[in-house]
Amino acid sequence: MSLAHNLSASISSSSSTFLVQTNFNSRTRNVSMKAKSIGICKCIATPQELQTAYKTKVSRNANMAKLQAGYLFPEIARRRSAHLLKYPDAQVISLGIGDTTEPIPEVITAAMAKRSHALSTLEGYSGYGAEQGEKLLRSAIASTYYGNLDIEEDDIFVSDGAKCDISRLQVVFGSNVTMAVQDPSYPAYVDSSVIMGQTGLFQKDVEKFGNIEYMRCTPENGFFPDLSTVSRTDVIFFCSPNNPTGAAATRSQLTKLVQFAKDNGSIIVYDSAYAMYMSDDNPRSIFEIPGAKEVAIETSSFSKYAGFTGVRLGWTVVPKQLLFSDGFPVAKDFNRIVSTCFNGASNISQAGGLACLSQEGLKAMQEVVGFYKENTDIIVETFDSLGFKVYGGRNAPYVWVHFPGQSSWDVFSEILEKTHVVTTPGSGFGPGGEGFVRVSAFGHRENILEACRRFKELYK
Amino acid sequence: MSLAHNLSASISSSSSTFLVQTNFNSRTRNVSMKAKSIGICKCIATPQELQTAYKTKVSRNANMAKLQAGYLFPEIARRRSAHLLKYPDAQVISLGIGDTTEPIPEVITAAMAKRSHALSTLEGYSGYGAEQGEKLLRSAIASTYYGNLDIEEDDIFVSDGAKCDISRLQVVFGSNVTMAVQDPSYPAYVDSSVIMGQTGLFQKDVEKFGNIEYMRCTPENGFFPDLSTVSRTDVIFFCSPNNPTGAAATRSQLTKLVQFAKDNGSIIVYDSAYAMYMSDDNPRSIFEIPGAKEVAIETSSFSKYAGFTGVRLGWTVVPKQLLFSDGFPVAKDFNRIVSTCFNGASNISQAGGLACLSQEGLKAMQEVVGFYKENTDIIVETFDSLGFKVYGGRNAPYVWVHFPGQSSWDVFSEILEKTHVVTTPGSGFGPGGEGFVRVSAFGHRENILEACRRFKELYK
Repeated sequence: MSLAHNLSASISSSSSTFLVQTNFNSRTRNVSMKAKSIGICKCIATPQELQTAYKTKVSRNANMAKLQAGYLFPEIARRRSAHLLKYPDAQVISLGIGDTTEPIPEVITAAMAKRSHALSTLEGYSGYGAEQGEKLLRSAIASTYYGNLDIEEDDIFVSDGAKCDISRLQVVFGSNVTMAVQDPSYPAYVDSSVIMGQTGLFQKDVEKFGNIEYMRCTPENGFFPDLSTVSRTDVIFFCSPNNPTGAAATRSQLTKLVQFAKDNGSIIVYDSAYAMYMSDDNPRSIFEIPGAKEVAIETSSFSKYAGFTGVRLGWTVVPKQLLFSDGFPVAKDFNRIVSTCFNGASNISQAGGLACLSQEGLKAMQEVVGFYKENTDIIVETFDSLGFKVYGGRNAPYVWVHFPGQSSWDVFSEILEKTHVVTTPGSGFGPGGEGFVRVSAFGHRENILEACRRFKELYK
Repeated sequence: MSLAHNLSASISSSSSTFLVQTNFNSRTRNVSMKAKSIGICKCIATPQELQTAYKTKVSRNANMAKLQAGYLFPEIARRRSAHLLKYPDAQVISLGIGDTTEPIPEVITAAMAKRSHALSTLEGYSGYGAEQGEKLLRSAIASTYYGNLDIEEDDIFVSDGAKCDISRLQVVFGSNVTMAVQDPSYPAYVDSSVIMGQTGLFQKDVEKFGNIEYMRCTPENGFFPDLSTVSRTDVIFFCSPNNPTGAAATRSQLTKLVQFAKDNGSIIVYDSAYAMYMSDDNPRSIFEIPGAKEVAIETSSFSKYAGFTGVRLGWTVVPKQLLFSDGFPVAKDFNRIVSTCFNGASNISQAGGLACLSQEGLKAMQEVVGFYKENTDIIVETFDSLGFKVYGGRNAPYVWVHFPGQSSWDVFSEILEKTHVVTTPGSGFGPGGEGFVRVSAFGHRENILEACRRFKELYK
């Protein structure tokens, strides 16, 4: 390999395409440019070279080695691709990873386009913004979603999405905390905990990581854990309306949860990314529960409200009343992490977020949400009519279908094989999801209808 | 406080502004909207309440407690604000945090605006992208910056910036690695290492964290560390062209560095965020050095090339040849972190990145870089003419000015107080920066000229 390396190194010194001219007396000077690529030297390793590949002496992070297979959604994407290879002409419909499909309302994209254009003007240009987000957006989030809840502008940290903030929160907590999750739950909670070293090894017999408290959520307990059987942990991840079960906790249940956290001195990380999908009169925010600001953080996102899954914008609320055991405010450490490990969400995405929270933007977001909720109804009715026990749907864009006694991955595979529809196996969300499949309501109407037609064909 | 809480909770249940209508038969139905905020109940804590504030039983992460004061740049922003309070009419010029000031070329913003608009159409909408970045952009980065270096599209991980990737790399490494940094260096390397628990406590007498190898870079050694005195570490952070000193390592120096890493089995994290500022014939990428792919990661960014400090777009190269001691590819673990803790850069920013790498975009970026390099010349000439020893500037947008025997923070304060110009104290980058001040060349031309006029006035 060293010959190839030498060769490429000697070529590169004379052909770098990003040499800056040393003569820069004029901003509008002519710049000579090379073509993008002048011929690539491929290193073709022989089997012998592979055997003797150089290794560094850096040990792999043992926590990384604990993780199981791939992160769930890339794994599903992989299986989808494999299916497409097998059936190149199949009309695959993806109701799997919960990816939004409907265009972003124009009032929002126009604001992002305007901000983009403005960045090419002297007056409209801005460089680094505050890592915590633009003041106007923080203020709009506080007043729109927490207007009566005594959450202030500086309690809001704007981010590039709730998933990213969950990992940043884990970095704040460090490796010496214990954590609880709903079982089943969105896999980023458990995986980020494993990565930070908060857990033991994966125990194959029970399909759980050591040192995590799995709070079983089943049809029998109304998808709210029996807290009398839950051990104390430092951190409790709680998602409502829930991904994947679609269940939303009631005010009385959340009041119990807050009391449980208070009794134990725990911190709740409350994921409300689907709050706008709520039809029932349940709390949209954990901060509607008295005393929650002393025990809870809330994370949320524009992804599922405005179709921002690719635009990337979310927020996390860390009330200044939330204190570590030594009295140090959690918000101060989160602020330090946000400043050190992050540089703020894209200013263009933030312009979009501000447009989302205008009167017109809010109405447009509610229409998008309403459209997906209609999809949910169609899916619920379909499985209902086929005699399945169906959960969720009413307060969340996810339908949680029960296949008692069957393996989730088997059901997932059968549905994919026979209907070309991608779903998500419930067991991917934890052992409590075994025997369930999550069907996402994110899709074009015609795809939802076609998928339901195929489900009816398969299960008639 | 509980009365206020109860009050706000009872109000909120009836006034939530993000209730979705349960009747969603039509996407264009009328949606009733409440005003943003209906009266906020402020909790006014009495002194007694403050004393008895509720604390959770969660211990603060001990690594967070090790960090010193604020992250450098927010601290400078704080001092700037305090200065403005003191002198509300002062024309403050910021040559401190290295924030870009020139508009983004229109060929790039037009592409971002176009992508924004497209997101409101069925054909142009896209949701979740690959966490690793869009294929076209990965490919364009590989061919533009590494065209002859045998770096492939799938070695490139697109991100929301180099700073964010540095923290993600630290998460990959975990807490059991040792690290080395240039001293002085960009503070995110050390701070992210402290946060991950790789270091000991801060030792006030030497202004260093325990268990970090500080590789002193001074005018005496040409700002390249004497590797014969450097202990082995697992990870070596190396930035060239350097922030803050502006020094660029030569091919022969980088060859020594790669050999040093190889001898020690270390991994180099090479920060090339200023490579396009290089005037001399030094490597733009560590991968120009034969064998580097077996020992190095490279991180870079569009921030300082295209003014993307607020747009957020960067990338990291993790060659598949780079292996942990057990033979496991580092890229696989990085990929897992990117998939689990991140969701990809904004699709709009990525459209901008692709435009940056078009023929026209590259030319436009070089003009932006050229403009800042002219600023650099002006600053270098100014301090030169005042008899200061000046370093950097030629290969980087930073000028490193020596104030022998003086405290960096004192010089910073004096300059701010007497000229209203914000710089960066060298000691903020590590003890090796004591006695220096970093002057950033990012600024409008008239501000650079005015700042230099004031410097001449102060030091004449």
